[in-house]
Amino acid sequence: MDFSYDARTEDLRTRMLAFLDEQVLPAEPVFHAQHAAGHPWGRPPVLQELKTEARRRGLWNLFLPDDRFGAGLTNLQYAPLAEITGRSPFIAPEAVNCAAPDTGNMEVLSLFGTPGQQDRWLKPLLDGAIRSAFCMTEPEVASSDAANITTRIERDGDSYVVNGRKWWSSGALAPECELLIVMGKTDPEGPRHRQQSMILVPRDTPGVRVERGVHVFGYTDGPHGGHGEVVFDDVRVPAENIIAGEGEGFAIAQARLGPGRIHHCMRLIGMAERAFDLMCERAGSRVAFGRPLAEQGVVREWIAEARVRIEQARLLVLKTAYLMDTIGNKGAHTEIQAIKIAVPAMAEWVIDKAIQTHGGGGVSQDFPLAELWAHARTLRLADGPDEVHRASLARRELRRYQNT
Amino acid sequence: MDFSYDARTEDLRTRMLAFLDEQVLPAEPVFHAQHAAGHPWGRPPVLQELKTEARRRGLWNLFLPDDRFGAGLTNLQYAPLAEITGRSPFIAPEAVNCAAPDTGNMEVLSLFGTPGQQDRWLKPLLDGAIRSAFCMTEPEVASSDAANITTRIERDGDSYVVNGRKWWSSGALAPECELLIVMGKTDPEGPRHRQQSMILVPRDTPGVRVERGVHVFGYTDGPHGGHGEVVFDDVRVPAENIIAGEGEGFAIAQARLGPGRIHHCMRLIGMAERAFDLMCERAGSRVAFGRPLAEQGVVREWIAEARVRIEQARLLVLKTAYLMDTIGNKGAHTEIQAIKIAVPAMAEWVIDKAIQTHGGGGVSQDFPLAELWAHARTLRLADGPDEVHRASLARRELRRYQNT
Amino acid sequence: MDFSYDARTEDLRTRMLAFLDEQVLPAEPVFHAQHAAGHPWGRPPVLQELKTEARRRGLWNLFLPDDRFGAGLTNLQYAPLAEITGRSPFIAPEAVNCAAPDTGNMEVLSLFGTPGQQDRWLKPLLDGAIRSAFCMTEPEVASSDAANITTRIERDGDSYVVNGRKWWSSGALAPECELLIVMGKTDPEGPRHRQQSMILVPRDTPGVRVERGVHVFGYTDGPHGGHGEVVFDDVRVPAENIIAGEGEGFAIAQARLGPGRIHHCMRLIGMAERAFDLMCERAGSRVAFGRPLAEQGVVREWIAEARVRIEQARLLVLKTAYLMDTIGNKGAHTEIQAIKIAVPAMAEWVIDKAIQTHGGGGVSQDFPLAELWAHARTLRLADGPDEVHRASLARRELRRYQNT
Amino acid sequence: MDFSYDARTEDLRTRMLAFLDEQVLPAEPVFHAQHAAGHPWGRPPVLQELKTEARRRGLWNLFLPDDRFGAGLTNLQYAPLAEITGRSPFIAPEAVNCAAPDTGNMEVLSLFGTPGQQDRWLKPLLDGAIRSAFCMTEPEVASSDAANITTRIERDGDSYVVNGRKWWSSGALAPECELLIVMGKTDPEGPRHRQQSMILVPRDTPGVRVERGVHVFGYTDGPHGGHGEVVFDDVRVPAENIIAGEGEGFAIAQARLGPGRIHHCMRLIGMAERAFDLMCERAGSRVAFGRPLAEQGVVREWIAEARVRIEQARLLVLKTAYLMDTIGNKGAHTEIQAIKIAVPAMAEWVIDKAIQTHGGGGVSQDFPLAELWAHARTLRLADGPDEVHRASLARRELRRYQNT
Repeated sequence: MDFSYDARTEDLRTRMLAFLDEQVLPAEPVFHAQHAAGHPWGRPPVLQELKTEARRRGLWNLFLPDDRFGAGLTNLQYAPLAEITGRSPFIAPEAVNCAAPDTGNMEVLSLFGTPGQQDRWLKPLLDGAIRSAFCMTEPEVASSDAANITTRIERDGDSYVVNGRKWWSSGALAPECELLIVMGKTDPEGPRHRQQSMILVPRDTPGVRVERGVHVFGYTDGPHGGHGEVVFDDVRVPAENIIAGEGEGFAIAQARLGPGRIHHCMRLIGMAERAFDLMCERAGSRVAFGRPLAEQGVVREWIAEARVRIEQARLLVLKTAYLMDTIGNKGAHTEIQAIKIAVPAMAEWVIDKAIQTHGGGGVSQDFPLAELWAHARTLRLADGPDEVHRASLARRELRRYQNT
Repeated sequence: MDFSYDARTEDLRTRMLAFLDEQVLPAEPVFHAQHAAGHPWGRPPVLQELKTEARRRGLWNLFLPDDRFGAGLTNLQYAPLAEITGRSPFIAPEAVNCAAPDTGNMEVLSLFGTPGQQDRWLKPLLDGAIRSAFCMTEPEVASSDAANITTRIERDGDSYVVNGRKWWSSGALAPECELLIVMGKTDPEGPRHRQQSMILVPRDTPGVRVERGVHVFGYTDGPHGGHGEVVFDDVRVPAENIIAGEGEGFAIAQARLGPGRIHHCMRLIGMAERAFDLMCERAGSRVAFGRPLAEQGVVREWIAEARVRIEQARLLVLKTAYLMDTIGNKGAHTEIQAIKIAVPAMAEWVIDKAIQTHGGGGVSQDFPLAELWAHARTLRLADGPDEVHRASLARRELRRYQNT
Repeated sequence: MDFSYDARTEDLRTRMLAFLDEQVLPAEPVFHAQHAAGHPWGRPPVLQELKTEARRRGLWNLFLPDDRFGAGLTNLQYAPLAEITGRSPFIAPEAVNCAAPDTGNMEVLSLFGTPGQQDRWLKPLLDGAIRSAFCMTEPEVASSDAANITTRIERDGDSYVVNGRKWWSSGALAPECELLIVMGKTDPEGPRHRQQSMILVPRDTPGVRVERGVHVFGYTDGPHGGHGEVVFDDVRVPAENIIAGEGEGFAIAQARLGPGRIHHCMRLIGMAERAFDLMCERAGSRVAFGRPLAEQGVVREWIAEARVRIEQARLLVLKTAYLMDTIGNKGAHTEIQAIKIAVPAMAEWVIDKAIQTHGGGGVSQDFPLAELWAHARTLRLADGPDEVHRASLARRELRRYQNT
Repeated sequence: MDFSYDARTEDLRTRMLAFLDEQVLPAEPVFHAQHAAGHPWGRPPVLQELKTEARRRGLWNLFLPDDRFGAGLTNLQYAPLAEITGRSPFIAPEAVNCAAPDTGNMEVLSLFGTPGQQDRWLKPLLDGAIRSAFCMTEPEVASSDAANITTRIERDGDSYVVNGRKWWSSGALAPECELLIVMGKTDPEGPRHRQQSMILVPRDTPGVRVERGVHVFGYTDGPHGGHGEVVFDDVRVPAENIIAGEGEGFAIAQARLGPGRIHHCMRLIGMAERAFDLMCERAGSRVAFGRPLAEQGVVREWIAEARVRIEQARLLVLKTAYLMDTIGNKGAHTEIQAIKIAVPAMAEWVIDKAIQTHGGGGVSQDFPLAELWAHARTLRLADGPDEVHRASLARRELRRYQNT
């Protein structure tokens, strides 16, 4: 279990840090200003410039372990790079074409797509020419339990017909979003984990209706195409759009979620580090009751505790990455759940303290902290609430004691 | 220390509950829809209808203990009424003309205003005809320490000239906002607590510039006129606009803050109760992994713990109200700080658990929870961050042991 | 809901405070020294002196609401008195004959005992002439669920025969302990809450064997007769020793537990106040890194937070007392559970911070803090673990939402 | 940063696990029974048998990195071995001659001792033939600040004369304890970190008086010679007993504390794992309200959370060990502080939940949990309270931002 950076990682880290410092951080105010002045769900033009620059710098598709399509990095190699993008999580990940939900969709297409599907959809996604959404969660049911899914995908001749309602389809409101990957049931009476399938639905298919954007603590995530509530009303697509065959939906979802979860966690470490920087800078410069905050015991406790928590979370992410690389996503199941439980909570705590250190500014748009917090908090729910992960992790642990 | 409701309180409670159930809660979706369709800083028309109805029902200016101007209730009588308005905190308080910052401003004018000032400004505020803002906090300094204030109020002949920059001037962007109460220094070299004064500044005075709205976790608080960043650039007002004389600013602020803080806490109890209701309803109706959430141990722990915390916080608020009524705001200083520390944190915790119970819906605009949370979180900073209150409360406690 | 002290309470408080300051606190080192030098389960002689003095001062049997037998105080009147005894919880409660488990046993005998039972056992207990134990919990089963009880009480002619094993029978190792009140099943097949009965067993009955003392974090509670593990091996007692008849055991236990729980909570407030005093005194006198602890931010946070938590807990206890006095123990069920959840956790937190303020001394025998902590911690388990109370409280809350 | 076990570590782990399972765990009840029946400060005979057996198995002095004297393992190699001993922390560490405070004293002698000192004292300590104590902390001052030390070591001809009072001199009451290493001031007016020296004091030197044992939450730690309060009254030792020369005391203490702290943390991981095992076994076997605890949501949350916390703490300990091995104790200063903050708190939390799962048994002597807890809690104070470490760690972090 060797966490040292190899030469390639070291090189990419250096370049990623330079890109962040030279290009991304300075672009943050521009990004927000352009968004405020533009289309509510449109991407600010500066993002395209950053993408061009990132590609020029060789920072592109680093997330994809399949070197036919992406950088071919291991999770352990990718972790420190994704962490750096997490320091500016609303810009950097997309600038290097490593942003959810496209990453997961590209991963699905690279693993399970037919050559035709890859040619039609994976290629433009890898190029950053189009964007996509992932339609799994439903408003009416507890979707962390896949058996609850109610969307139907029914075979009808050479087509499938999709009916249902999804939400939290991130990116679906963006003009650039051309593809929806939809999970639904093809066989509601089948075995629990064989009922579901996934299918490719071009967003302009008749019957697809993006009704609205779902907000997150007041944020629309507009520059990323928001979080769509999408209705599928007798949506008909060719039968060949099914991914990997009927009944494979649950397995694909599992394959997609492991990397998705660790990517979130890698970036959350970076988000926490960004908040940590801001907290320390503020503590050094803000004076109250005659002394800088940095000399006040409570703020010092936060800083120490934050450092201790970040470091522990990072190590657990690295260990998980290592296990995914060596024994596979399934073997690393417990660790993936562990980081999904630990890391958002850690980031939420650190960011909260950074907010408190900033006073009123902390909850405002003048610092990225409030939006970072909202993002971290939401990740205690997205991809399954903490409670579901904890219950599952505990069941697995308890199994080891059953014969004692 | 008798917390029972007397007959008048009982009667007002019954009427307030009816108003909430019959008018306010049904108006919530209307309010949001009208706001989305209207002016970003304007009040939705339904609010005016509710105000008319509230006044008709005798639910008006209940916050004001001075019965020449308001209902003449004690804090203990007002507490359960304010709590009820806290269940719909973005509508109910203003509907009954008991919303910050106007309440504090009316209190200041009723206590310290000259008859002329009261006639010009207090009367229309009491009528709900205009709105006002309070300009104290400054972006450049830790404003919980009043000595840090940099805004200047300088005498020049028959006028005062105001120069400075304020933010978190809630309501300042509203078209209805006609009055700003501004704190600044008239005597920067005077004794620490005699340097400050307060002055009345009509918002249309030349040199007043409301530059932008400060957001709260993505929320603009638009329907309430947002939170303004206001620049005062050689703003000249008549000398008679000073409140209570030069050097009285700190004392007025203290007089204003005590009631302001307890009013926030009263409403926070109601916010927590609203979240509690939503959590219990959701727990009873949402099924995951074959059982309603209500039968799952973790959710039950939250519900029990929430009830225990709410109840303790409510009792502490009532005790504080009782002390303010009997020994005065100064005598109740420790208790006012205690609730300012305890109640926002309690509400934040309860609402967070309600959010978690709602899954993705919890952070969205489909339930009031995310916005309630943002409000509760902000109150750990507004009117002084927790840390300042804790340090001050502890100093006072420690004093009792100094000679031991 | 009036929490003010009436004249009688005020008078008793004054006398109790004087007794504590003049007699009890100075006796603490004597008590420990005598115990160390004497019988491991025997009472230090100073305790008898204190009892004589307390009785002389009219501070005796204050816990018993039945004025035929005790002081006839309401719970609300008793609360502040019990709190004072909690400041020296290993001496004061017994010095005023208000110590568990005798209080509960006296309450049971006063409520359910026949005149003969009262004459034989209640009278000497009220006189402080003998001591008693309560045998309910069993080592082999989760005893918070009364259906799990395995001890049998079987009718055989004019006798009952008791067989079983109990533990946590506090006081049972003391030479002065003459009576055991034992809960067991007379009808294991009966309705869930009618299976159990309670019976009086003189400790010297053949077949009663006190096997050992159970420790609490290294403490034996020796001066109070420890916590016995007691075996009942064909123990035969007259049929008239049954309390209130067969099948009444569960109801008696419930009647006993309500007051027992609130008495613990009242004393826990006092324990927290004692720890608070010690923390503040230490903070004022101990210097580290050039400044007294009292000027260091972290310690100040603890002090403020402790004050806020103690105050909230006290108010909840008072409310519960009030409800028990007015609507009865059954009506106050939720509140009794609420304080059982909230108060030990509060005390544990406050004492932990006081320990930390004392450095190594905090965990040692040089201050009462470590033993106070162990006692508070144990009360998160005794009389039912927190989790059982929370689950039950939540079920009750959820019931209110069932038809929504 | 490679955390994999090399072949030697793997071999030692296998042997250590076998020793624990086959010898140590079965000896636990014997150990306690022998102690209860024997000398209050004497070692139970079974310990000597275990030491003989451990040495036979090649498990001896593994802590000592200097291969002239000990096993010559790196910290990274030693970490998993020390963790295993932590599963039975009151027996296993001493059985393999790796118990504090002897380990630290042996380290000091190996690093700073003269050949004569090593021959006289290090040799018998390495053989496990004698035991030693470390006399640093003083009852009257906050000893985490070395400048507070008041004990004097004064040169007088060919001797040094020691005067002072120490406590928490662990092991000092044991009959086997023959050596005290004492820290005191030789030059109270010298530079802050050059005032202190360390000196070797044979326990039988006239003037040495071990007054009493200091308890830890009711535990005496009797089988390990307790925690002595030791008075030095004109204690005269030869001048050659000074270690490394006058003024070296602070530097020696620092050199001693780094390894001491990480050894504690390694063992705490094992203590947490032991509690985790007990919690899971209990959860699987104990039934309450019709279901095993393992099926109840709250207990499952604890189990999951415990696993997540233990794993993070372990990784941080391993990283710290790696840094100590590669960049030295000084370079790893921040990480040593980080584990000192994080690991005891983690262990305390895990053990607390295991206690709660065990009901009344959890706080009793029937399971090791209560004593494990007391030990973990004390380590939030021993070797410097959390607050001192946090303040120091934060200062170091803040330094990085000073020029921004």
